[in-house]
Amino acid sequence: MEGMVAPRGKPSAQRLEQAGHAFADLAGRAILPYFRRRISVDNKLGQAGFDPVTAADRAAERSMRKAIAATFPEHGIVGEEYPERPGSSPYTWVLDPIDGTRAFITGNPLWGTLIGLLENGQPILGFMDQPYTRERFWGGGGKASLRDATGKVRKLKTRPCARLSEAALGTTHPDLFAARTDAAAFARLTKAVRLTRYGGDCYGYCLVAAGFMDLVVEVGLKPHDIAALIPIIEGAGGLVTTWEGGPATGGGRIIAAGDRRVHAEAMAVLRGG
Amino acid sequence: MEGMVAPRGKPSAQRLEQAGHAFADLAGRAILPYFRRRISVDNKLGQAGFDPVTAADRAAERSMRKAIAATFPEHGIVGEEYPERPGSSPYTWVLDPIDGTRAFITGNPLWGTLIGLLENGQPILGFMDQPYTRERFWGGGGKASLRDATGKVRKLKTRPCARLSEAALGTTHPDLFAARTDAAAFARLTKAVRLTRYGGDCYGYCLVAAGFMDLVVEVGLKPHDIAALIPIIEGAGGLVTTWEGGPATGGGRIIAAGDRRVHAEAMAVLRGG
Repeated sequence: MEGMVAPRGKPSAQRLEQAGHAFADLAGRAILPYFRRRISVDNKLGQAGFDPVTAADRAAERSMRKAIAATFPEHGIVGEEYPERPGSSPYTWVLDPIDGTRAFITGNPLWGTLIGLLENGQPILGFMDQPYTRERFWGGGGKASLRDATGKVRKLKTRPCARLSEAALGTTHPDLFAARTDAAAFARLTKAVRLTRYGGDCYGYCLVAAGFMDLVVEVGLKPHDIAALIPIIEGAGGLVTTWEGGPATGGGRIIAAGDRRVHAEAMAVLRGG
Repeated sequence: MEGMVAPRGKPSAQRLEQAGHAFADLAGRAILPYFRRRISVDNKLGQAGFDPVTAADRAAERSMRKAIAATFPEHGIVGEEYPERPGSSPYTWVLDPIDGTRAFITGNPLWGTLIGLLENGQPILGFMDQPYTRERFWGGGGKASLRDATGKVRKLKTRPCARLSEAALGTTHPDLFAARTDAAAFARLTKAVRLTRYGGDCYGYCLVAAGFMDLVVEVGLKPHDIAALIPIIEGAGGLVTTWEGGPATGGGRIIAAGDRRVHAEAMAVLRGG
């Protein structure tokens, strides 16, 4: 509205968090009408592969972009579906309206809306919203929380896990590991852990934050696949890095763990140690 | 209560269905307090493997057995956790309180309570209840339904799928296929379909019934893993058989499909054709 100008300067952590919740609400409202409906599925890759992009994806990203631009006109926006919108502030929102599109189109509720906020390139706030199960995970400022379908909010805390041999490992799909060396590394890891679960997408990272899994290992992630999840896992006491131990914000080959001991042991196994 | 005797003779389909709903309600109430709690996990297989059995599993099966014995004293009961209770009627209830124990202990909601009813060995009624997402799938008498968290009930109908190359395939875990020939057969199938999703447990079969997936293929199933799912898939218009095309009620190597054309094509691929 004319006359309303977004406050200049550094927004408070509380204001950013409230805004993130509002953006997640918008995304859920845009997406849910499409979930478990017979929808047409575009095919980005044509004959070469199958990368479904739904109307829901685009509707949710448009809805969030509009709200972000209205609330924080000086913030940048990076999303999966539309071109980057450069900002004039240290803040950039990183959006993946539906992480787990394959889960989505098969009616499986283990997809989520990812909303991350970077300050000078560092993830400081992140949301993973599952509007069908009505679960929202979020983290930042050294804490992480889950609100469930009943509206109950609880603090998230990773669980201790002393050894890789006791760890529950998650990943989205065995075929992620297309490179032969990555596949071999991941196979070594599955032999070293107590159990492996497939099919998690972003949900698996949140289960690490909640203390029900110990490790998620994936490859080929884009920044928008991981930026929002870093503050959730770190806020719950875990850590996320590349397989080499570097910052995870850029995506790539990612390892998320609830306990540093398991993270170190898993990195060694992935390196072939 | 004394003086109350269960009616003799053939119970009506309606009465059996109402009873099944009541048993599913009981199971959900027994299980939910344990979901996403830090629980001790027994290990049936000792050092040889990891087959978690939780207190929730046992509490739910006891609760259902008690209710079945009170409601239908002449019916048999077969469950995962306790010995068979032979009946003196054509009816046998087949129970799996938590199908997908690994999903359960990792905090993942894709497990379910399976309640099947056999009449003279044939599955005539089945329930898959997911009390956390508050979804209940059930089928029998040529129809199948889903009640969601909002209480809305809708009829389930499998979707047409003319060719295997267009099919979405689900299975629980790639390591299910331990036998080399089974693994090779499944690998051929994953190459022939449009996409494969892992991690479904019983949920995948219900997504076939709901028309969002086309195929579930698994091996090593027990009767209690599949009996309840047969009336759901068949009631929605699909079919479930062994890989050889025989009855699925006994478990083993199972193929469930929403469309007969995909079922036939998948059987041929699994046979190596």
